[in-house]
Amino acid sequence: MRVSKWWFLGVGLYSPFALAAQGHTDPVASVILVVTTILFFAIMGRYIAKRFNQPGVLGELLMGVILGNLCYFAGSQLVIILREGSSIFDVLKEVLQGKTLGQAVDAVLTNSYYASQLTQALSGPNGTEYLKIAYVVDIFSRYGVIFLLFMVGLESSVGELKNTGRESILVAIIGIAAPMILGFGVAYLLMPGSTLQADLFIAATLSATSIGITARVLKELKKIRTREARTILGAAMLDDILGLILLAVVSSVVINGAVDAYTVGRIIVYSIFFFAGTLFLGPLILRRAIYFFRFLEPWEAKLFVSFLFVMSLAWLASYIQLATIIGAFAAGVILHDGYFKADKSSAKESLSIQHLVSPLESILAPMFFMVIGIQVKLETFFNWQVLFLASGLVVAAIIGKLVSGLGANSKDDRLLIGIGMLPRGEVGLVFASIGRTLGVISDDLFSAIVLMVIITTFIAPPLLKARYAVKKKENEHEN
Amino acid sequence: MRVSKWWFLGVGLYSPFALAAQGHTDPVASVILVVTTILFFAIMGRYIAKRFNQPGVLGELLMGVILGNLCYFAGSQLVIILREGSSIFDVLKEVLQGKTLGQAVDAVLTNSYYASQLTQALSGPNGTEYLKIAYVVDIFSRYGVIFLLFMVGLESSVGELKNTGRESILVAIIGIAAPMILGFGVAYLLMPGSTLQADLFIAATLSATSIGITARVLKELKKIRTREARTILGAAMLDDILGLILLAVVSSVVINGAVDAYTVGRIIVYSIFFFAGTLFLGPLILRRAIYFFRFLEPWEAKLFVSFLFVMSLAWLASYIQLATIIGAFAAGVILHDGYFKADKSSAKESLSIQHLVSPLESILAPMFFMVIGIQVKLETFFNWQVLFLASGLVVAAIIGKLVSGLGANSKDDRLLIGIGMLPRGEVGLVFASIGRTLGVISDDLFSAIVLMVIITTFIAPPLLKARYAVKKKENEHEN
Repeated sequence: MRVSKWWFLGVGLYSPFALAAQGHTDPVASVILVVTTILFFAIMGRYIAKRFNQPGVLGELLMGVILGNLCYFAGSQLVIILREGSSIFDVLKEVLQGKTLGQAVDAVLTNSYYASQLTQALSGPNGTEYLKIAYVVDIFSRYGVIFLLFMVGLESSVGELKNTGRESILVAIIGIAAPMILGFGVAYLLMPGSTLQADLFIAATLSATSIGITARVLKELKKIRTREARTILGAAMLDDILGLILLAVVSSVVINGAVDAYTVGRIIVYSIFFFAGTLFLGPLILRRAIYFFRFLEPWEAKLFVSFLFVMSLAWLASYIQLATIIGAFAAGVILHDGYFKADKSSAKESLSIQHLVSPLESILAPMFFMVIGIQVKLETFFNWQVLFLASGLVVAAIIGKLVSGLGANSKDDRLLIGIGMLPRGEVGLVFASIGRTLGVISDDLFSAIVLMVIITTFIAPPLLKARYAVKKKENEHEN
Repeated sequence: MRVSKWWFLGVGLYSPFALAAQGHTDPVASVILVVTTILFFAIMGRYIAKRFNQPGVLGELLMGVILGNLCYFAGSQLVIILREGSSIFDVLKEVLQGKTLGQAVDAVLTNSYYASQLTQALSGPNGTEYLKIAYVVDIFSRYGVIFLLFMVGLESSVGELKNTGRESILVAIIGIAAPMILGFGVAYLLMPGSTLQADLFIAATLSATSIGITARVLKELKKIRTREARTILGAAMLDDILGLILLAVVSSVVINGAVDAYTVGRIIVYSIFFFAGTLFLGPLILRRAIYFFRFLEPWEAKLFVSFLFVMSLAWLASYIQLATIIGAFAAGVILHDGYFKADKSSAKESLSIQHLVSPLESILAPMFFMVIGIQVKLETFFNWQVLFLASGLVVAAIIGKLVSGLGANSKDDRLLIGIGMLPRGEVGLVFASIGRTLGVISDDLFSAIVLMVIITTFIAPPLLKARYAVKKKENEHEN
């Protein structure tokens, strides 16, 4: 049994790429192998996290870190390529323009050790296969983020946003401003050589809030209908929008290379116009599209309209130099089942937008978290500076969000609200990955940020539960 | 209005790639633009086809042909790349191994006119972007075929297959053998210079049957419960399996370069072992996996188990040199909702496998038909030989399947059964695309085969309806 197991692993991991490189199998076969393996481990991570009552995202991310680094230290050439994220496509571009592979890699990667590893991996017999697989994995994970943000948007409707109270607004603003200022300070002090752009990007990443994790914990504790919960959820929803605008501003500063009032002002105006324009024109276009597609089956029309709408807004957002995810989020906020004629005649016809899109999201989003995990180079932590930086970011991230509770009514439990705002979850990771794509976040910084996201996401649920336990005791004493 | 429209088209079509090539936007943005545009036109094609009471597949395919050729004649560099299908990945491989772009293209493409066009497109400023987009489109469409065949498999259960009557078996066998022999003859006569492998591949493609189109027409006419309908559907189901085995044998002959008893025998044994093995082991593995995933939400477990199962079998099939679609089909035949605990507590929990997988299939499969359409080079028809060949194939395809009706009971309407077996639909296209990937089907041949598929798929529904009308008249006369 033992022998046959190893034999299987042996062929499973090496031979398929060789076969594909010879062109003798379906070109999709090697992609299927890697994509399915990544998804398999992502599901395992999610499964383990769930069994330990942790958010699924955390399990997927940690599984990515563990698997990625194990494979890297075991010498996997595919992981060497995957670790470098989208910078390998710059390599490809240089090669197609006439550079040799070695020259191209050196031009893109600054670290010569990783560069020589990458050159070796790409020039090997399976290099082309690996490159293509890495590209598909990259694209799948980006589609995953788009569907993820669309689903986040679906959960926050325009109506609800209008009803958020003054307290939520205050909590949201403090929850953005405080971590930004603290984060910028930490980055400035602990990374002496860093650029202003990098410091700003870190600050923006610290300001993110993930509504999903807190909401789930509050649901579990049956506290979702309390005043505190409403304040937290309202603030987190606003934070999503403010955070996305902030991301757009910071990205634009990075792209333009300078912090000037014109750039910042332009992006803020673009963002506001984008949200306002989609909120105004979106429903009109949707109604026309739905009317036009009335000859298709209702579930089909719903799926197609949703898909085309999300993708159009994602592309449009990117076209005016906002991020694709901003468009996806806006599409989610606007779209709801009410646009479509309710037809409950068969089970398939009564499928909601969420039913139709969640298969796409459930398959693709875990890929994103695995890819983020794989890109965390554990060896970067063998460096006191990185550890200091990570600790500083964690402290700034925690204090910044705890302080946000002060925006709430003094009758409410302000500490509880602050704790609820802690987790950065998927939103923080999306910000970090965009920074990496833009080239402003180095390997070291990326590791430190991912650690910050893991810790803030990990501690929030037990702290929330503990705080509720303390409150319960206090109430019992009072009575 | 007119000016603004053109302005929009201008930026819409050119600028995004330039932006992406500069690395200033999300790398997925240009992919989203093209993928969404292709899907949009696919849906349009489907929509128009449905409005004219035609199968959706036909609309998607024709839209691909029209759009692809229009863009090509308008000089779109992306379409120049998309037209060459997966052969551009051989180009990429040669480039990474040190050849110049021009040398690599010349090594892969035989037609020097297309080669120089391709070199120009790839070496342009957006070449890398186009290459990456073409690759993603290719991979998406291949995933689409896998989901498509999985859904075809889902519709044919093991139980139903056991109950197919002797007549269905006879119809299926004649329906495979007759078009093969005729197709081989036509190919041999009309393509004097062709290889034995190409002739065999054409013969196999002619033997395909698409159950979906006939089934839909029979449902519309409310004839799905008649004896003839049962014979047709049973035969078409068997044809799916026999056809896939045939495809495996022919592909293997192409890969190994020789027709010998050993190769053919080995692949037949592999295929039988694969089907038998998955039928025997599949349920055991499925039960264990479902038990293991019981801590996930039921709908999530169902989606993940289905996805992993399809992809594992698809990969395994490709690993033993069968096609990925054989694995996907087998997965569909084995999997059914009965494996999962029925939990009707909420709408989301009661989702069937078909509900969960159809969003994936509905988005990706139309890409496949569009891509097939785009790869049809209309200029190949400016050649008498190609037109002769196409006509020959159409005649062989029609007569071959009409003859299959002779396998049915003499009391049944044999002509009706023959007509029902006519459409090649998606199965024929899958066969043709595999042949193209393997390099055995030239541009000319590909065009001729796609025309054959379009015609046989197009004429079947009206002929079926006409035949039923004639029968009704006869019955009225008799009474």
